[in-house]
Amino acid sequence: MVLEALHHIENPTYVQPELLAEFVASLFHAAGMPRDEAREAADILVDADMHGIETHGVAYNIDHHYLTGLMNGYINATPKFRITHETPSTAVFDADRGIGMVACKRAMEIAIDKAKNVGVATVVVPNSSHFAAAGYYSRMALEHDMIGLTMSSGGTRVIIPLNGRLPWMGTNPIAFAAPADKEPPFILDMATSTVAFGKLAIAEEFGVDVPQGWAQDRDGNAVTDMKHRSEVIGQPPLGETHEHGAHKGYGLGMMTDIMAGLLSGETISGLMPESARGGRFCQYFQATRIDAFRPAADFKAEMDKMLIALRNQPALDEAKSISYAGLPEHETFQERLKTGVPLPQHTVAYFKRMADELGVDFTLPG
Amino acid sequence: MVLEALHHIENPTYVQPELLAEFVASLFHAAGMPRDEAREAADILVDADMHGIETHGVAYNIDHHYLTGLMNGYINATPKFRITHETPSTAVFDADRGIGMVACKRAMEIAIDKAKNVGVATVVVPNSSHFAAAGYYSRMALEHDMIGLTMSSGGTRVIIPLNGRLPWMGTNPIAFAAPADKEPPFILDMATSTVAFGKLAIAEEFGVDVPQGWAQDRDGNAVTDMKHRSEVIGQPPLGETHEHGAHKGYGLGMMTDIMAGLLSGETISGLMPESARGGRFCQYFQATRIDAFRPAADFKAEMDKMLIALRNQPALDEAKSISYAGLPEHETFQERLKTGVPLPQHTVAYFKRMADELGVDFTLPG
Repeated sequence: MVLEALHHIENPTYVQPELLAEFVASLFHAAGMPRDEAREAADILVDADMHGIETHGVAYNIDHHYLTGLMNGYINATPKFRITHETPSTAVFDADRGIGMVACKRAMEIAIDKAKNVGVATVVVPNSSHFAAAGYYSRMALEHDMIGLTMSSGGTRVIIPLNGRLPWMGTNPIAFAAPADKEPPFILDMATSTVAFGKLAIAEEFGVDVPQGWAQDRDGNAVTDMKHRSEVIGQPPLGETHEHGAHKGYGLGMMTDIMAGLLSGETISGLMPESARGGRFCQYFQATRIDAFRPAADFKAEMDKMLIALRNQPALDEAKSISYAGLPEHETFQERLKTGVPLPQHTVAYFKRMADELGVDFTLPG
Repeated sequence: MVLEALHHIENPTYVQPELLAEFVASLFHAAGMPRDEAREAADILVDADMHGIETHGVAYNIDHHYLTGLMNGYINATPKFRITHETPSTAVFDADRGIGMVACKRAMEIAIDKAKNVGVATVVVPNSSHFAAAGYYSRMALEHDMIGLTMSSGGTRVIIPLNGRLPWMGTNPIAFAAPADKEPPFILDMATSTVAFGKLAIAEEFGVDVPQGWAQDRDGNAVTDMKHRSEVIGQPPLGETHEHGAHKGYGLGMMTDIMAGLLSGETISGLMPESARGGRFCQYFQATRIDAFRPAADFKAEMDKMLIALRNQPALDEAKSISYAGLPEHETFQERLKTGVPLPQHTVAYFKRMADELGVDFTLPG
């Protein structure tokens, strides 16, 4: 219920993806990014909105994670990416403090190229920034008949360890994508908390209560009424309590810190000095060539078989269907190809303000 | 509380690991396995017991997953393993229906060897069987200054999809291990259900109630009183409900089906014919060479720094400490080096019976 409520936007302005991406790109360009990279970054944000992942689209992160960062120089608008170390199947790709989307798209391209040669390849990205939805990069592998794996570490400490009082790490998402043949692909894109932290802001804005397990105050109590969001200091990991597996959600978050952070030489959020919390992000990408194991056509046919059989399993509530990761997003995408992206009014107002401030034409409707 | 209760064994017989491994090996050998492979398999089971992972040690799986299988020929006692396909960083390693522990140890050795050459490597194992605790294989990477990742798919369908009525897949564990310098390593070994299914049997035996989210009947109701274990048809995934992230636990289980099952060409549990449910297992192993990214000494020093800082975070309940995956198991291991492995009396009785049946000397105390 609450999950559906958080997807409902009151009185939205619908914008076609091409128009929206071009407008957001013009903001990034005005903030110093080269034209083509600005558009690449904007495309990745709009892609999240098109898939219904509003927490990682143009609305909720653009100011905090991208535009303000570009304008105050925390994000380097004209980074020089470089590989600082590599082997046939690995690379360390320094993002030079550039915007996460552009650096990470390059990094996944390198992983895909290396996997073409040797079968499986991993690229880590230190010195990066927020990169929008993790699933985008894993999904890049699919058209090459590869499997994609993405992890991102860093940002504000929000996840509270079991028996901890204070948050220690970011929501450290993991995304995994595998191609099917005719069925929509399997794309798991998950924060290692119960929900993305951004859902709390949306719940506050919409005046919706959140379930226990989504937010916690400094005494370890659950906060469910988002009128009290200022008391929230963090979130329990996926699983919430020890008995319900919080050590697993927490462990997956630590795995992400290790693979994206410690392996790349980046400082993880938990070890950042107090002044730098909410600091650098870092990422991990892996591409696995399916035909290094078996013919890709056979694999994809078996994926179809699995996904169809799963959807046809007997349902507990027959009014609802059995779904899988990536399917709801695929359906939202098909729908938004027709409707465009629904933008909340406060986002439209923000865009007007920023267009004015950056001297950019406001080309959106409304 | 319940988790502690399940680790408490009433009136145990303590057995030193060497004696226990040699005895269990003699059972496997009597059931047809070559002497050295029998000992390798037994060592991996005893290793789980030494780390306090009783659900995957000598007691709870030996009959169902190993001895009975060897005796009735479902498990091949003298398999001929072979690589059926490979690239510089990948291999498909056919286990020829052999016991999972021996085949999977070989598979991880191949992944480690390949990673030495190219940086990161993946080996999948079709035609396998139950392989005990997943963490063992990931841990093999550590002494080579590598990171290990393991997934296992297959076995009895127990995990019920969101809105599903019937179970679809096995508990499909994931294990991840990364080395530290002086601190105990980080070793996450998790079923993608809330708890390992084996804990229900232990709870029944001990007469302990289990929390909601551990077991479900065919109408979707939670079963918490293990006197009614016969009504349990499966478990919800990690997260339990949609609002609490069950789609994530479920998605991780599907990732495991895809990586260990579909990639290796093995049939996943959900697609097995009714008669073959609880059928073949298959596994996925990955080794990542740390110095393909940065000097291993630097990485391990940073691991120490992270693990120490985490343990020193302010605790909610100051009587308890903040832990991390692998630390409790490390502590249990140190303790059991002194005490030996505590065996429940019914396990001792089972061993006596099997020693008799297989014509093996009963060498355990009691």
